[in-house]
Amino acid sequence: MALIVAKFGGTSVADPERIKNVAAILQAVRQNGDQVVAVVSAMSGETNRLLGFVAQMGERPSPQEADVVVSTGEQVTIGLLALALQARGVPARSFTGGQVKIVTDTAHSRARILAIDDAALRTALAAGEIPVVAGFQGVSEGGRITTLGRGGSDTTGVALAVALGADRCDIYTDVDGVYTTDPRIESKATRIDKIAFEEMLEMASLGAKVLQIRSVEFAHKYGMPVRVRSTFKPEDEGSLVCPEDPSMERALVTAIAFNRDEAKLTLQGVPDRPGIAAAIFAPIAAAGINVDMIIQNVSDHGATDMTFTVPEADFKQAKGLLEQVAEQVGARGVSGDTDVAKVSAVGVGMRSHTGVASHMFQVLSNEGVNIQMISTSEIKISVVVARKYLELAVRVLHEAFELHMPAEERTGL
Amino acid sequence: MALIVAKFGGTSVADPERIKNVAAILQAVRQNGDQVVAVVSAMSGETNRLLGFVAQMGERPSPQEADVVVSTGEQVTIGLLALALQARGVPARSFTGGQVKIVTDTAHSRARILAIDDAALRTALAAGEIPVVAGFQGVSEGGRITTLGRGGSDTTGVALAVALGADRCDIYTDVDGVYTTDPRIESKATRIDKIAFEEMLEMASLGAKVLQIRSVEFAHKYGMPVRVRSTFKPEDEGSLVCPEDPSMERALVTAIAFNRDEAKLTLQGVPDRPGIAAAIFAPIAAAGINVDMIIQNVSDHGATDMTFTVPEADFKQAKGLLEQVAEQVGARGVSGDTDVAKVSAVGVGMRSHTGVASHMFQVLSNEGVNIQMISTSEIKISVVVARKYLELAVRVLHEAFELHMPAEERTGL
Repeated sequence: MALIVAKFGGTSVADPERIKNVAAILQAVRQNGDQVVAVVSAMSGETNRLLGFVAQMGERPSPQEADVVVSTGEQVTIGLLALALQARGVPARSFTGGQVKIVTDTAHSRARILAIDDAALRTALAAGEIPVVAGFQGVSEGGRITTLGRGGSDTTGVALAVALGADRCDIYTDVDGVYTTDPRIESKATRIDKIAFEEMLEMASLGAKVLQIRSVEFAHKYGMPVRVRSTFKPEDEGSLVCPEDPSMERALVTAIAFNRDEAKLTLQGVPDRPGIAAAIFAPIAAAGINVDMIIQNVSDHGATDMTFTVPEADFKQAKGLLEQVAEQVGARGVSGDTDVAKVSAVGVGMRSHTGVASHMFQVLSNEGVNIQMISTSEIKISVVVARKYLELAVRVLHEAFELHMPAEERTGL
Repeated sequence: MALIVAKFGGTSVADPERIKNVAAILQAVRQNGDQVVAVVSAMSGETNRLLGFVAQMGERPSPQEADVVVSTGEQVTIGLLALALQARGVPARSFTGGQVKIVTDTAHSRARILAIDDAALRTALAAGEIPVVAGFQGVSEGGRITTLGRGGSDTTGVALAVALGADRCDIYTDVDGVYTTDPRIESKATRIDKIAFEEMLEMASLGAKVLQIRSVEFAHKYGMPVRVRSTFKPEDEGSLVCPEDPSMERALVTAIAFNRDEAKLTLQGVPDRPGIAAAIFAPIAAAGINVDMIIQNVSDHGATDMTFTVPEADFKQAKGLLEQVAEQVGARGVSGDTDVAKVSAVGVGMRSHTGVASHMFQVLSNEGVNIQMISTSEIKISVVVARKYLELAVRVLHEAFELHMPAEERTGL
């Protein structure tokens, strides 16, 4: 008998009919002999409706009170799902974050989980009940309601699985797993049966939106296997995100990830002296802008160019800040381009294989795709290209690394 | 400096704009030098929306889980009102029933308040904050969310006022006070400045829907003055519901109440023997049907007729039960009539004056209104008449007891 934490996102509990469907899935898990704890999000649209009310109350609403309002979304779902289970004759009991006690810090609207008291859930499980827990929320030590921020329900699921020593955390969503790339761009994309935490982390941060990145970090840290599966095809096993194992190294590349909404900024003719990078990036970090790739060319007569990428939405603000910096540090000027995209090859197999990067560059070159920037880590290679080449680059790389083929049939170049 | 508990019902907090209006009222109370604790209902329509979801989950939903869902309505309002106050620069903090600790019994969906911990609210008041408390909800000793049932927010308001030793509980609603009768029937109805708890109780149970009857009982028990006033005319003082005082006795009748939705049932030819009444009413009580007036004629040759009234909505079920009883006890038969209404004259002044009843009967007789049943208490006289006479009866009684005139100008017959 396994203990499974099963998390259902907003589209899985979008309306009363879907909530009943979730009850049927949970009943089936139990009939299969396993114990299960459910974690649920708000019905889709509900959180936005509540945030809309909050926004109407005035500028800069206090996150403490916003959390009180927004956390009701999940509370509605837990009550309804418990009722739907009971209607099927399955004993069930709802728990808010405060009732479980999921203790968080006081960073309202983006709180971090500090501790989980598993006593109430264990009591419910021992009584034969399915505990139905509100995702996304907790309670501060002072007894105030907190929320974990967008996507926080995934984190609740994984954290509960860790606290309970569960065998697995199943994340039920509206896709049936993690794919080798976005099937809307490459119809030959195949589903990945097993993917390492590190790979999933690279994919999450690269724009694959299947799992919330914080939940993957959490799962990675505690080695909790996570299965991504479809609420609408519950019999399908989906993709397992798990610790790296030797079989994974056979494939050089596991997936092609991409991010369409990138922008590129270049500070030209920067005096090449110590501390200059800090001077450039401090104001950008202070504005809360996420800098991704950073490239500094070798110095040419005591001056260099510094290029980096930011989310497209932050481009204007970043450019304004950079223009001030340029004046202060005596740089020649600032140029920028919002017409770029990032394409990445991800795979733990790269660790033990050389030549992946050069193969990738060759493939893109063969298609006439100019590479503007390159950045690499142990298990990924990212390139920035003109946005018009995005789809082409994804498709040719997907083909070149044989991702359209079943994993066991790939030749590995 | 007075301490006031101010309760706002669903229409007062119907949408974000109205919630901001409530914040303005509370700010004005504070600027007036008083301390205030706010109690709020769910935004109007919200509770029904949530109950609609609950109903879709299956038949006979468990009240425990229904309470988890329904209680979110008030939780949304407290957060929004706290935000609206903060936006005006007024420190405020929201409290769910569980956070205050409003401890109730475990009769979910109609729980009764057992105890209120005033510590958290006092701390907030001492810190200069306006505590904003969710009405209608509490928490059981086991930590589960409970609700007090429809209209329970009034009860929360009065109970908090008692627990805090407040000077008054103001119930802000969509009417500007308690009237001598329904102004939709008698346009000359006047507002009552001061009304005794006992009178208000008789009026509440007679169909005047201004205050929830449980809250009036509570206020009566603890002698807590309650002011009924309008959210839309907050400068207007409304009606004060308070302990009886000598000045009230001057008026014979304070108000004419009525109930349109009555039905009458008669069990004919009941053998006149001990225990017969219990045999008749036990099955009706078991079905949860509220019996109001009961009249038993004097016995005629060992048999009697028993007539009573029930809410019109329960007429069919009550008639069915009564027909079974008739067979069991050997009664002659059952007759009934749904075309009746009840009209009542209420006033503490009746205690010290005779002749009110006979005056009332005379007035109705003058207009040709036949009285079908009569029931009296110390401070009220009720008659059942054909429904078509309802409006006429209300108007002529209102006129006869001079209720269209200012209280101090009435001659007292």
